Amino acid sequence: MKVKVIVTLKNGVLDPQGKAIQQTLNGMSFENVSEVRQGKYFDIEVKESDESKAKTQVEDMCKKLLANLVIEDYKIL
Amino acid sequence: MKVKVIVTLKNGVLDPQGKAIQQTLNGMSFENVSEVRQGKYFDIEVKESDESKAKTQVEDMCKKLLANLVIEDYKIL
Repeated sequence: MKVKVIVTLKNGVLDPQGKAIQQTLNGMSFENVSEVRQGKYFDIEVKESDESKAKTQVEDMCKKLLANLVIEDYKIL
Repeated sequence: MKVKVIVTLKNGVLDPQGKAIQQTLNGMSFENVSEVRQGKYFDIEVKESDESKAKTQVEDMCKKLLANLVIEDYKIL
């Protein structure tokens, strides 16, 4: 089954890439954009039909590889 | 209000970064991962309280800046 994961920077961690996108949008007539934060998205196909088992495995992957828990949070959708 | 967007590569477009993640996971005892596709995630704060208006604006941003519609799809959550 397919598991979707979003990895985002924790609140308070500077996001210069998001800031650059926000400024670009402001300059493109989207003046009412006050903040942009960018994150990563993963679509993971796991050979496991049991949903909770698959999600437990993906959580393990997040902790070990996909997210840097010092500065990032992950969310399994 | 806050609008969340996911931008993913279209099916069929090569994703070498996702492939590298998959191979790394396979080498880390996650042998049952058969595919990984990576995408981008945006958290956009729009000064607009009407949800449908905010989403229409964000859709416009996706078309003009956030996604390359030749090779990418976007989804507003």
